[in-house]
Amino acid sequence: MERSQLEDLVAANRILAEHGVIDAYGHVSLRSPDNPQRFFLARAIAPETVQIEDILEYDLDARPVEAKGDSVSERFIHSEIYRARPDVMSVVHNHSPSVVPFSVTGVKMRALFHMASFIGDGLPNFEIRKVKKGSDLLVRSPELGKALAKTLGKAPASLMRGHGSVTVGENIQRSVGRSVYLEMSAIMQMQSLMLSKKITWFDAAEVKASAPVQDYKRAWPLWREKALAQAKADRK
Amino acid sequence: MERSQLEDLVAANRILAEHGVIDAYGHVSLRSPDNPQRFFLARAIAPETVQIEDILEYDLDARPVEAKGDSVSERFIHSEIYRARPDVMSVVHNHSPSVVPFSVTGVKMRALFHMASFIGDGLPNFEIRKVKKGSDLLVRSPELGKALAKTLGKAPASLMRGHGSVTVGENIQRSVGRSVYLEMSAIMQMQSLMLSKKITWFDAAEVKASAPVQDYKRAWPLWREKALAQAKADRK
Amino acid sequence: MERSQLEDLVAANRILAEHGVIDAYGHVSLRSPDNPQRFFLARAIAPETVQIEDILEYDLDARPVEAKGDSVSERFIHSEIYRARPDVMSVVHNHSPSVVPFSVTGVKMRALFHMASFIGDGLPNFEIRKVKKGSDLLVRSPELGKALAKTLGKAPASLMRGHGSVTVGENIQRSVGRSVYLEMSAIMQMQSLMLSKKITWFDAAEVKASAPVQDYKRAWPLWREKALAQAKADRK
Amino acid sequence: MERSQLEDLVAANRILAEHGVIDAYGHVSLRSPDNPQRFFLARAIAPETVQIEDILEYDLDARPVEAKGDSVSERFIHSEIYRARPDVMSVVHNHSPSVVPFSVTGVKMRALFHMASFIGDGLPNFEIRKVKKGSDLLVRSPELGKALAKTLGKAPASLMRGHGSVTVGENIQRSVGRSVYLEMSAIMQMQSLMLSKKITWFDAAEVKASAPVQDYKRAWPLWREKALAQAKADRK
Repeated sequence: MERSQLEDLVAANRILAEHGVIDAYGHVSLRSPDNPQRFFLARAIAPETVQIEDILEYDLDARPVEAKGDSVSERFIHSEIYRARPDVMSVVHNHSPSVVPFSVTGVKMRALFHMASFIGDGLPNFEIRKVKKGSDLLVRSPELGKALAKTLGKAPASLMRGHGSVTVGENIQRSVGRSVYLEMSAIMQMQSLMLSKKITWFDAAEVKASAPVQDYKRAWPLWREKALAQAKADRK
Repeated sequence: MERSQLEDLVAANRILAEHGVIDAYGHVSLRSPDNPQRFFLARAIAPETVQIEDILEYDLDARPVEAKGDSVSERFIHSEIYRARPDVMSVVHNHSPSVVPFSVTGVKMRALFHMASFIGDGLPNFEIRKVKKGSDLLVRSPELGKALAKTLGKAPASLMRGHGSVTVGENIQRSVGRSVYLEMSAIMQMQSLMLSKKITWFDAAEVKASAPVQDYKRAWPLWREKALAQAKADRK
Repeated sequence: MERSQLEDLVAANRILAEHGVIDAYGHVSLRSPDNPQRFFLARAIAPETVQIEDILEYDLDARPVEAKGDSVSERFIHSEIYRARPDVMSVVHNHSPSVVPFSVTGVKMRALFHMASFIGDGLPNFEIRKVKKGSDLLVRSPELGKALAKTLGKAPASLMRGHGSVTVGENIQRSVGRSVYLEMSAIMQMQSLMLSKKITWFDAAEVKASAPVQDYKRAWPLWREKALAQAKADRK
Repeated sequence: MERSQLEDLVAANRILAEHGVIDAYGHVSLRSPDNPQRFFLARAIAPETVQIEDILEYDLDARPVEAKGDSVSERFIHSEIYRARPDVMSVVHNHSPSVVPFSVTGVKMRALFHMASFIGDGLPNFEIRKVKKGSDLLVRSPELGKALAKTLGKAPASLMRGHGSVTVGENIQRSVGRSVYLEMSAIMQMQSLMLSKKITWFDAAEVKASAPVQDYKRAWPLWREKALAQAKADRK
């Protein structure tokens, strides 16, 4: 694992906080490029304060390789998605505020904005009650993690009822970019539904055509540079 | 009373202002850990400017122990809640903007987001008119404070019609955290109601299971550190 | 006119910009305490850049006493309100964004939040078409200023259809504070109307009781100090 | 081309980002005052980071005069509008968030706010599907650019379905100012439609009368100065 990749992960934590997508309780991880059975995730601190030394390595049972500080209780979101989805290299869990209303109403999010066309004709919604009644809604066990991964299936993201959402990607730019634009698309969809019942959604061909170009590659260097400059400033 | 606890209170004032939950007119107090008949509350200045020397000590009749500057006219909110609720160690009064629409329409706030599950199946709403007709809506007397405390009952928060709300907790993290997430949950509920009439609310078992983990302990150190750094910078 | 009063006016320009109530095109004035036939208003620059030397003195025909830079084309809003309303010592004209929807729909703004109880049971709405058809909506003549002042009548504020609003006060704290809280109340009213058709408005006795305490005196020193610190920093 | 004009373009990139009108993917161009067959556009980087050396010159086939870095893939928006509209000196393409809901619902934007009266009685909406089925919605070819220019016609702006919008002007102040106030007017129109079905729109005479004064000349120096100060600070 190169230092620049750990820096990507530090940046990702701060980018998501800066965009208002995660509060003190979100998290983002990166699968190890050296060992697909391992992933990196910051210890249980607020994402906007993460530094490189706060990042821990985990195995796919969500056990820290080395004990260095408290682990995030919901780390099973990450371990079980990595186990179930070999294509996924990065996972974000957030409390993206405008996505929650869709999760509790069952109104389907659909692609209507080209920066979030990955939504396609809908995203799954994880109803934790189907697996565990009377829970605190947190995904704090391997079983709940597996159930979430199953709901996610092959999708790029899943809502989590009354809680937030999870976005994944074959690299960190996509998992982060998808979180940023999922929030934005949720606002646009609420506004569109208020204006009219007749909405022009992306059709299947448009969704497919958009996938290769929707890589957030132009935003990433800007976001990353700002975030790492802040991380450096915070050390002083 | 230790200095670090007074610093908690300084931080709480600034955290609430930073999150847009209180304008120049909100206030937050802390019951004395040494004497349950006393509480601490800043003098009548804008919360985002509070320093440690602005904090006054009061008895449960809302009389300052030592005269040092103007007292907040609504200090009876605090004194009467402390009197009625021995379990409460901290009280926040705010003008949380998105909560006001619920207070004037009688639409019940209900738990739909796990960070604000304390809302449960509803919060009381203080209608000052039932106690005093033709008032300025301010709780500026022991009688009005007692009436508010009675409306609050055993709840973690109460709306105040056309005015704002009050949140309480067995520590300052909870009273502050509840104010922050009550505002956020109010926005989510308005949006959800716009999307659909059918909402999946938290059920009683989920509300109960969420209570122990909903302590805002991960957010607090971040919030506190930032707030006190600002307080220090403001002295220069 | 004392220097501290001119500083009040500098601060007012910047406070309104900081609160998002005025964009580059709003303005705020102060009647001369020495001569009721005169008022002070900044030259035609963006309010957030105003310094003490940008302030010009005008007579009630909106003629600058000394020529020092371009005058605001809508200065007749101020001159004609001062002429018609001897009780008014300060006038704000803004494009307060959330007030505009009320101005174009004719939905009456009403008091529902105690920080904006001055709204009472409604505010007048200036329809420029009744005075001048096919206008650019700007109040750029004595005639239009007189018509606006007539619409305002004895009210603390008037909407201006498709344009913005004007708020007045017997001091600058009130004209400014009313602009800040009029915007906030407009948002709350839109949200309340979305939640329910049945709203508990302030009754007449509550409006009356609120007037003396609603002076924004606790907010003002905070706002003023911040604004003047920024004005000083901008000189460097 | 004078340096101050290139600085206008640097400022325009940053002003639009600062106002939240363009994310990392918007762009703004300026036709060469020396040669109407040429225009200037920054290379493919995030607008808020643009410096004078990032600006490239293009001909009306969207070919860079000198190869200096990656070109924006959607540069054909600019080239084809300049070809079709000799009166246009500046073009902005953005993902203005509140405009997208109008683009996907077909609800017509109409002038209701005097700062955005240029909207008149409606703006065209570019439906890319009519030209290319199954696209990624990006205007990445001369053909798509021509189709967009045709939809735009003689209008000051056009929506782009599921994507954003384009605004044009006979100078850069207008193309930029129109983007800023189009976003604001979209929010006002959504709110107005929520309040009432009966809206007082600008009539034709008011639209016509507003055109000459709606030049954003008072906002521009403020915006430009701030933006260039930031550009300078960013070099350090």
